[in-house]
Amino acid sequence: MKASRFFVSTLKEAPADAEVASHRLMMRAGMIKKLGAGIYTYMPMGLRVIRKVEAIVREEMNRAGAVELSMPVVQPAEFWQESGRFEKMGPELLRIQDRHERNYIVQPTSEEVVTDLARQEIRSYKQLPRNFYQIQTKFRDERRPRFGLMRGREFTMKDAYSFDRDLDAAKASYQNMAQAYRRIFDRFGLTYRAVAADSGAIGGDLSEEFQVIAATGEDAIVYCPDSDYAANMEKAEALAPAAPRGAATKPLAKTPTPGKSTCADVAELLGVPLATTVKSLVLATDVLDDAGNIRGSKVWLLLLRGDHDMNEIKVSKLAGLDQGFRFATTTEIDEHFGCKPGYLGPLNLKKPVTLVADREVAVMSDWTTGANEVDFHMTGVNWARDLPEPTIVADIRNVVAGDASPDGKGVLAIERGIEVGHVFVLGTKYSKAMNATFLDEGGKPQFLEMGCYGIGITRLPAAAIEQNHDERGIIWPDALAPFTVVVCPIGMDRSAEVKLAAETLYEQLLAGGVDVLLDDRGERPGAMFADWELIGVPHRLVISDRGLKEGQFEYQHRRETAATKVPAAGALSFLQSKLAA
Amino acid sequence: MKASRFFVSTLKEAPADAEVASHRLMMRAGMIKKLGAGIYTYMPMGLRVIRKVEAIVREEMNRAGAVELSMPVVQPAEFWQESGRFEKMGPELLRIQDRHERNYIVQPTSEEVVTDLARQEIRSYKQLPRNFYQIQTKFRDERRPRFGLMRGREFTMKDAYSFDRDLDAAKASYQNMAQAYRRIFDRFGLTYRAVAADSGAIGGDLSEEFQVIAATGEDAIVYCPDSDYAANMEKAEALAPAAPRGAATKPLAKTPTPGKSTCADVAELLGVPLATTVKSLVLATDVLDDAGNIRGSKVWLLLLRGDHDMNEIKVSKLAGLDQGFRFATTTEIDEHFGCKPGYLGPLNLKKPVTLVADREVAVMSDWTTGANEVDFHMTGVNWARDLPEPTIVADIRNVVAGDASPDGKGVLAIERGIEVGHVFVLGTKYSKAMNATFLDEGGKPQFLEMGCYGIGITRLPAAAIEQNHDERGIIWPDALAPFTVVVCPIGMDRSAEVKLAAETLYEQLLAGGVDVLLDDRGERPGAMFADWELIGVPHRLVISDRGLKEGQFEYQHRRETAATKVPAAGALSFLQSKLAA
Repeated sequence: MKASRFFVSTLKEAPADAEVASHRLMMRAGMIKKLGAGIYTYMPMGLRVIRKVEAIVREEMNRAGAVELSMPVVQPAEFWQESGRFEKMGPELLRIQDRHERNYIVQPTSEEVVTDLARQEIRSYKQLPRNFYQIQTKFRDERRPRFGLMRGREFTMKDAYSFDRDLDAAKASYQNMAQAYRRIFDRFGLTYRAVAADSGAIGGDLSEEFQVIAATGEDAIVYCPDSDYAANMEKAEALAPAAPRGAATKPLAKTPTPGKSTCADVAELLGVPLATTVKSLVLATDVLDDAGNIRGSKVWLLLLRGDHDMNEIKVSKLAGLDQGFRFATTTEIDEHFGCKPGYLGPLNLKKPVTLVADREVAVMSDWTTGANEVDFHMTGVNWARDLPEPTIVADIRNVVAGDASPDGKGVLAIERGIEVGHVFVLGTKYSKAMNATFLDEGGKPQFLEMGCYGIGITRLPAAAIEQNHDERGIIWPDALAPFTVVVCPIGMDRSAEVKLAAETLYEQLLAGGVDVLLDDRGERPGAMFADWELIGVPHRLVISDRGLKEGQFEYQHRRETAATKVPAAGALSFLQSKLAA
Repeated sequence: MKASRFFVSTLKEAPADAEVASHRLMMRAGMIKKLGAGIYTYMPMGLRVIRKVEAIVREEMNRAGAVELSMPVVQPAEFWQESGRFEKMGPELLRIQDRHERNYIVQPTSEEVVTDLARQEIRSYKQLPRNFYQIQTKFRDERRPRFGLMRGREFTMKDAYSFDRDLDAAKASYQNMAQAYRRIFDRFGLTYRAVAADSGAIGGDLSEEFQVIAATGEDAIVYCPDSDYAANMEKAEALAPAAPRGAATKPLAKTPTPGKSTCADVAELLGVPLATTVKSLVLATDVLDDAGNIRGSKVWLLLLRGDHDMNEIKVSKLAGLDQGFRFATTTEIDEHFGCKPGYLGPLNLKKPVTLVADREVAVMSDWTTGANEVDFHMTGVNWARDLPEPTIVADIRNVVAGDASPDGKGVLAIERGIEVGHVFVLGTKYSKAMNATFLDEGGKPQFLEMGCYGIGITRLPAAAIEQNHDERGIIWPDALAPFTVVVCPIGMDRSAEVKLAAETLYEQLLAGGVDVLLDDRGERPGAMFADWELIGVPHRLVISDRGLKEGQFEYQHRRETAATKVPAAGALSFLQSKLAA
């Protein structure tokens, strides 16, 4: 491509609302253009990157035996009503009425439509397994779209859906997809982790997220440097402490802690480690009568170490809390604790609550917690002596760095990531809701076992940039760059030699199958180099009169700070060796 | 591709609502699947065709210097309000409100968004000309979607937009696109015509439609077999008759025509040619006062030969009718003619009307028309003698076969076509509405001159089928076929020789760059052949035990009725010669 026939449009300044590097750099490099909140035009430079992502994903999906189709962007609501998601999804689902006032939605994913397709097309076990995928425009009406393509409203997703005869076969399809995803992310040239994720009702290790590692990532990723354990924060298990509980050494005492309503403040006041304090979280579940009306509520007290955070997903899986819970109201708290939040604890309750102790709390001795009296905490608290041994002990906290790895092979570390892919066994959730069955060998109808597999096609370039940029701009991995090589002639309009050499090299590289751009815009060297460093083309060849006198071009990789001289005659093979590297 | 890794799903019967061949065949061949009214999933087999259309369009657009980008499907209404189309487009424009009750639309085209982009990006004449295109999902909420992909609501369109410094440059951009379109449609391998179309306010020859010729086409195309003149019916000019008006030979007479209210009935009753009758069409235009309120109306009488039809586009360009017109009400008709429709004419008026005579009517003598009295017509009517010479004579009719060609080189013929492309000079309609300017050499802001260029990507396969099918199914041109070649082994599961030969041939063809499918499904020959004839793969190679004994495969083109024996060893080169043909 010649720049004069392309569209290069860079900006000195990023717009004020661009908060993260990828957003700023994609705007400045002329890759995207904002049309509305979370809605972007993919400009020619950005579209080239997106097309490269698509091409790699498509190749590997095909290789893995998935078959491409394309489902409608605008979908009749009836399918979504059938699955129940029309109501459940809330305002994130963009709803439309057509001229006849019939309801439609703009697809955020396509489980319903693909399940409808499967129930019509898949009649026999002989047609299984099946995997359909599409690369298509999606829309999620995010409450707060931001970070450019990272959390947009309109985006492109590759979504694949597998159909199998039973759960074992579904797991095999899932593993096949997880392997394809590894090939895809390897080919992108990004540093990433496949981390175990919560798989909801299905259970087991049937969900993984593919996270591009970046300090600015929204997600915390838990991994073990000494093994291949990796999970997202929701999923990572905090093991029960190996050491047994220490003996009680301190007396139980009510200690004044005026105005100190957080564990951190109390620990500081008392001069004890934060890890010896215990915080109280009060939840409530509604109690329904046979007619389904709310008849009352049940109050739960969760005890966590002062330096630990509650893990909502883990809590939501406990018996009794797995049908939904909420934080208790001040009325409920007052009724059971006789005290306002900030000084709550498991002792001196007005009315019994259901107590859940985190595994870590269950082995503590001599701990500090609220006294259920404003401005007082209890110190020297000990299980069995001061209150009954907890009957419910569970993992209800987020892991922290240094926790033992669940695979027993070391301790956990935490880093930040950006979720760009997700593989998931769905089970029969949609096939049951929509009655999608096939006939087994015995001629008996069985529900299809499904899996779903997503890749955020337009989020991926943003994630790649968060991981690969510097103060000058983007640094694309070769596989994702809008152009792999840029040829920059200096003074092309003044020097016939430079022009000839540049065009000859350009034609040579093109003929050699290199994705090359010739910058024939006639910009001054400084502006030209700044543009391509901002845009992030990984390989640059500079042609100048001075270099030509020595029979040389100058090569510089985007990550390098100085150029290398390359004999003009050997430029193609030099570059090919660089590209193969 | 192996069929076992693809998705082949054919139907014996087409659904009842499939009215045209392309719709029936695409449904039966498993290319599309209906999700809702005018909304289809592109199934794997159909998507392959669409991708081939896209690839050819993309290559030729790039070759012509257009640059690809991708604009949002969901667009903020504010841009459409700026251009005025938010109101003007009516219910065809699909409207949405997001969670914040802000208005959006689903793009039917993207003039507004691309004009907004241009007004931000194009600052100087040095950046011109520019042409941006996209291949993206569109939606038009058709009142009556039908014919499958031919008139769907959701569809894929390639839309390109050119920006130029003045009208001459815009015309050059337009010609460049028209040339690219010719290359595109040539490459598709379809019989088509580029026909002149009405270019609205711009005037001149600045709009062409690309019509795929098919007996079932919705559009009438006018062309001259002896020249390259071609236009759509709206545009094709009916020349003034060359022969002068004949002398009056008959007396004017009021003739009883009881119950005969159409020209055809009157001609039959009187035993005269239909072409000697004149029909009256009564239009009205509102007369406004200075405040823009309707103060009254003006009534127009259009006279057309009995065998001719009014051309609404031509009428809408006449001075006085060019701001909009309507058919007259019965009250208006009664007030001016004193008679009900069916017997109206230019004689014996109660109140004067503005008379417009078609060019053909203006040279008639001894004609028949309504008497403005129920059950009577006037015969032997002659201009000058019986009523004044017409002051407004214009081309207001559709041409008919046999009319003189406007280029003077023969007579016109009419055939049917399906519009699949349109090139159009827009002028400054959008750039003025949205204030999209650039600075000229003198530093003065000028409005951008625009052009727009569409190709119905998903309609194209349907049009190709309307032109190319038989009772057995689709007959794809090579360039559009989902697979160019199908290898059909007979008894692959029973014969190791057949299996080996089929797989070897398949690998050979793949390596030779042939887009081949190996049907390894194990279907019986009859069902297998019927599937591929229905799907329309142009080249078929059959491998059987019997043939192998003679060292031969059987080749048959989809248009042929008998197979040719091909030496197994030479199959690749044989096929390559067929594909090159």
